[in-house]
Amino acid sequence: MSRLPLFGFFRRMLGQDKAFRQAIATVTGRTPQNVRLYHLAFTHSSVVKQQTTEAGRNQSNERLEFLGDAVLGTVVAEYLFRKFPYEQEGFLTEMRSRIVNRESLNALALKLGLDKLVQLDPGQGRAARSRSVNGNALEALVGAVYLDQGYKAARKFVLSRLVKPFVDVKSLTETTANFKSKLIEWAQRHGKAIRYELNGEARPGGVMEFTASVVLDDEVVATGMGLSKKQAEQLAAERALATLGV
Amino acid sequence: MSRLPLFGFFRRMLGQDKAFRQAIATVTGRTPQNVRLYHLAFTHSSVVKQQTTEAGRNQSNERLEFLGDAVLGTVVAEYLFRKFPYEQEGFLTEMRSRIVNRESLNALALKLGLDKLVQLDPGQGRAARSRSVNGNALEALVGAVYLDQGYKAARKFVLSRLVKPFVDVKSLTETTANFKSKLIEWAQRHGKAIRYELNGEARPGGVMEFTASVVLDDEVVATGMGLSKKQAEQLAAERALATLGV
Repeated sequence: MSRLPLFGFFRRMLGQDKAFRQAIATVTGRTPQNVRLYHLAFTHSSVVKQQTTEAGRNQSNERLEFLGDAVLGTVVAEYLFRKFPYEQEGFLTEMRSRIVNRESLNALALKLGLDKLVQLDPGQGRAARSRSVNGNALEALVGAVYLDQGYKAARKFVLSRLVKPFVDVKSLTETTANFKSKLIEWAQRHGKAIRYELNGEARPGGVMEFTASVVLDDEVVATGMGLSKKQAEQLAAERALATLGV
Repeated sequence: MSRLPLFGFFRRMLGQDKAFRQAIATVTGRTPQNVRLYHLAFTHSSVVKQQTTEAGRNQSNERLEFLGDAVLGTVVAEYLFRKFPYEQEGFLTEMRSRIVNRESLNALALKLGLDKLVQLDPGQGRAARSRSVNGNALEALVGAVYLDQGYKAARKFVLSRLVKPFVDVKSLTETTANFKSKLIEWAQRHGKAIRYELNGEARPGGVMEFTASVVLDDEVVATGMGLSKKQAEQLAAERALATLGV
């Protein structure tokens, strides 16, 4: 039987599929139900860009990435909310962006070995192999676990397989490069008055963009922009410190 | 007994509490377990800004708003993911931002009558009564339902009490000023190939800034920048349409 080429083909497919299921179970800690979702999570858009139908182009992990990004953000939000009962919203937002930013997600993805599962078009060069590919696949994987196993399982996956083993929340807190604090200390040492001028502008899509200026003794020394007041002020403070040579 | 002032005070408190519980049950469709969470959800920061301790300042709804914003984003993400199986990530992102933007949340909050539950410092003027107060309370309420009743209940609240009765997804889709779609249609009519080249650059504070170029038959015709891929691509598409005189 095994000499029939078609049988060999199916056997290889089944073998691959079994190995893939096993890999997913190892990574997520759960036996996958709908394996198709996980295959999709690891399909980079470069593999399907040639597709000419809408349905074909949607067979990449980008939609799952959109969903997984939201689930991941919620799980980490709750984790921080409970872990830091006395910290305000700005701190929680900042900490979350340190945990789920592009670089950190990519590092997490590599720690889980997701790079070995991602399907890329081998014909694609640098762009497709850019650093965000693995981090995006990780987000898509969270989306796949959510759809396949529900919120609780996705939450458990994120907490027990990502956050707790790999995210050093304490050191993230301590190494927070708090430029605003540094600038205040500097101003106090030098007897200067520091204040921030803040402007917000609505951008299409409901996004607010903030511009913060650091005003040192009535003179604007630096300006920063960001999607939150906090971000804009931090950037302005960082640039002010650079300008002042601190 | 009822002439004792303290008893009257407690009776009034209990009566108020019963009325509040009833209001929450009416709005969310579920009897609240931990009522404290819902009181917190409706406590605007202006009421507690006078507090001098960290713990005191945290007794406003801002932390719950951070959590609820994430939960709401996830529920709406899944809703759109399932409702539009053939739409790509950019469309889903855009649709979500149309549903959960500041103005739309505020309108939803008013439809639910949340303005009658929000606790504001009456001494505060315009700023505290700004349009986002009610929308923020709605996000905080979603956070409270999530902590009090779990994800499934929060999801049900969002879908059955907000999205399905009040969000006209179809008309939101139709009014989308989608420059990318227009550009694709134009290209198809003229037998041209359109693609986007995308670059992201990390900015301090965890912000990514994206640059998208519209490439028409291997020639860059327009470039746009934005804080998301979608924004950058939309802007690039809008400019391409202008350049092409469409």
